[in-house]
Amino acid sequence: MSRLSRRLLAEFVGTLLLLATVVGSGVMGVKLSQGNDALALLANAGATAGALYVLIVVFGPISGAHFNPAVSLAMRLRGAMTTRDMLAYIAVQVVAAVAGVLLAHAMFGLVLVQPGVHARTGASQWLSEAVATFGLLLTILLGLRHRPRAIPALVASWIFAAYWFTASTSFANPAVTLARALTQTFAGIRPVDVPAFVLAQVAGALAALGVASVLDAPVRAGGMRSDR
Amino acid sequence: MSRLSRRLLAEFVGTLLLLATVVGSGVMGVKLSQGNDALALLANAGATAGALYVLIVVFGPISGAHFNPAVSLAMRLRGAMTTRDMLAYIAVQVVAAVAGVLLAHAMFGLVLVQPGVHARTGASQWLSEAVATFGLLLTILLGLRHRPRAIPALVASWIFAAYWFTASTSFANPAVTLARALTQTFAGIRPVDVPAFVLAQVAGALAALGVASVLDAPVRAGGMRSDR
Amino acid sequence: MSRLSRRLLAEFVGTLLLLATVVGSGVMGVKLSQGNDALALLANAGATAGALYVLIVVFGPISGAHFNPAVSLAMRLRGAMTTRDMLAYIAVQVVAAVAGVLLAHAMFGLVLVQPGVHARTGASQWLSEAVATFGLLLTILLGLRHRPRAIPALVASWIFAAYWFTASTSFANPAVTLARALTQTFAGIRPVDVPAFVLAQVAGALAALGVASVLDAPVRAGGMRSDR
Amino acid sequence: MSRLSRRLLAEFVGTLLLLATVVGSGVMGVKLSQGNDALALLANAGATAGALYVLIVVFGPISGAHFNPAVSLAMRLRGAMTTRDMLAYIAVQVVAAVAGVLLAHAMFGLVLVQPGVHARTGASQWLSEAVATFGLLLTILLGLRHRPRAIPALVASWIFAAYWFTASTSFANPAVTLARALTQTFAGIRPVDVPAFVLAQVAGALAALGVASVLDAPVRAGGMRSDR
Repeated sequence: MSRLSRRLLAEFVGTLLLLATVVGSGVMGVKLSQGNDALALLANAGATAGALYVLIVVFGPISGAHFNPAVSLAMRLRGAMTTRDMLAYIAVQVVAAVAGVLLAHAMFGLVLVQPGVHARTGASQWLSEAVATFGLLLTILLGLRHRPRAIPALVASWIFAAYWFTASTSFANPAVTLARALTQTFAGIRPVDVPAFVLAQVAGALAALGVASVLDAPVRAGGMRSDR
Repeated sequence: MSRLSRRLLAEFVGTLLLLATVVGSGVMGVKLSQGNDALALLANAGATAGALYVLIVVFGPISGAHFNPAVSLAMRLRGAMTTRDMLAYIAVQVVAAVAGVLLAHAMFGLVLVQPGVHARTGASQWLSEAVATFGLLLTILLGLRHRPRAIPALVASWIFAAYWFTASTSFANPAVTLARALTQTFAGIRPVDVPAFVLAQVAGALAALGVASVLDAPVRAGGMRSDR
Repeated sequence: MSRLSRRLLAEFVGTLLLLATVVGSGVMGVKLSQGNDALALLANAGATAGALYVLIVVFGPISGAHFNPAVSLAMRLRGAMTTRDMLAYIAVQVVAAVAGVLLAHAMFGLVLVQPGVHARTGASQWLSEAVATFGLLLTILLGLRHRPRAIPALVASWIFAAYWFTASTSFANPAVTLARALTQTFAGIRPVDVPAFVLAQVAGALAALGVASVLDAPVRAGGMRSDR
Repeated sequence: MSRLSRRLLAEFVGTLLLLATVVGSGVMGVKLSQGNDALALLANAGATAGALYVLIVVFGPISGAHFNPAVSLAMRLRGAMTTRDMLAYIAVQVVAAVAGVLLAHAMFGLVLVQPGVHARTGASQWLSEAVATFGLLLTILLGLRHRPRAIPALVASWIFAAYWFTASTSFANPAVTLARALTQTFAGIRPVDVPAFVLAQVAGALAALGVASVLDAPVRAGGMRSDR
């Protein structure tokens, strides 16, 4: 098995289980919560955070545990991976995300493919996605510099928070967005709403790259004097 | 006291307290949640995760903190324990799991042995158990390689997530499944449904061993060139 | 300031804030949860775990962060502190626990001293307290040996779980029990029920000392052969 | 870019995202919880804790991640920063906190500036703020001494607990208090109630400085004899 195949297998299994968690916990949350969507989202956010922590710890040393085209794009732009590898990563992430949605449906005995009907559109939603992805990428870029071993806990904590503080419940991941267009359950989104979400996510990721590089820039000598 | 006795005592106390937590927190959750099962499952999942984290930290250095025949089987197949020790572990895990269910009943003043009546059967449930156990074993096998000290937090996080994203609420443990056939409370299962659950769990564990060994396989030299 | 005074000050501030958290979060939980006690207990357990983690990290290096006569007794029996210091610790813990209950009442504008009216009695409750305290002490004794720096997270996780899996919601602390007899809010207990709780807690602590010392005992040479 | 500018940029982005989280998660919690404010506060507390952990990890090494004038004041009084830098920090924190409230409003499609109408006044509320800020500062001051790398988890845990155990839900931050006077959502406060909250917070911070310095004071030689 080539090194790239191994990395792609890790991306595949990780993204598959991530989507199974996101969609499955939404189904279970709604099923048990008597119409109280705060409980469904709490279940959804808690389960997603738990799975993210695990999957990034166990697959991180193999593939980097991107599970997210926005992350792979940022890594490419930082020169941390080749264009060819980035494209392979993204293709696998999309396929695995779709497979994860199907797996969640199968675990709950639902129709396997269900075109999403949950409307998620408008400027507030797009701003939410941009902010969520901006925060996610900033977390990863600065986390890698300051405390790389905490990346799994950091990403899990950020996503838990962003599920709650954004109007879109924070998809923050183009492959996840695409795959969630295939479910009519709690986590779904209409296919027609996907492109704008992806655009907002890419914009957020690029903004994070910008801010991170400003924070990384060398300090002017003159500034050293007056500061600690 | 022999070294094996000490390890078995650790397995016994750990599995006992784990089952007391799983069953007891389900009883308390149902008692307080006014029929909202999402809250009962949240209590159940949170308490189980908390106890797993503690029990694996404190008993891990003594016995490995398996508390689970599927884990002991995987360790045997990886050559990490003898067949005799595996059998002793499994026997103790089953006895301790049953004792833990009785202890939970005693703490809540319930009839000590109550043959389970909660129907959990069908392909969706079996798939759920296979996926949950696959993820649990993959977490342990890769976690042991990449970050062994995080195993307690990893297992706790995985089980918390799997309680929510699987249709079966993730038993993922043959001894636990057997013991939970002795309660009619929230965490129960009909005795007749146990064998299929155990089979699905073993299948999931074997699949995890397979994937882990592929991810462990030596990389082909040719692959080194084109990859980072 | 003498070294002992400093340790006692740490015990005082830690126990005070612990009780303010236990009682205050119960009051807030009940106030907001529309009669759903599962939510009140979730708030109560989560807040208690958060505070325990913090208080043990910050006061642990100063006083050991016992905040609990059962812990001080166990430390005395293990020879880790003098009888005089144990008595001083316990006195301060009781005074601070009472002060913490009063502080919670003051923060919520309630009558400062309110003899508890919440009946908590009977064999199931006593067994619950014994199990909860047994687990708490085992966690501390084995945690100190295997992973001392994790003690704050271990104790917080155990107490979170034990709030849910025991019928008594796990007081597991004689000073806390006594102080909680002074509130009629969610966390209260009738004064008449206190002595049996304390007895059960001491019994649980002694059992934990026993099990921990068996697990600590030197391994028979003969046992080394057949085991790994 | 000067070193100070970089630190101020970190304070700005961190405080902005913190307030977006505090206000946004309150809006989402109320929107989904069918009038059950315990669920809204649980969402609010969990999201705030998650964001605090992340933001302190990623910005701590750059600016210290104060995000809070009470923290900057305490650092100034401990001699850890100049008066000029403290003033610059506080100015940026206030501006960023206001911007964060506006960002939350924009993400949820609400009117951007809404003078707060939530009455929060009276001795109980002020005592609550003093206790919450006392605990926060003590956590930071002792945490920096005993376990500096745990500061992000410590602050997050403390704030999670304090949201629940205080009658005011623990603002514990003058810039946050001021900014929350600009929202009529769950997290709001009347502008007229702000000054007393800020005063109570400063009093709590000063008390923490006092207790921390007593705990830091050199031990009398005489005390060494009788103590361990």
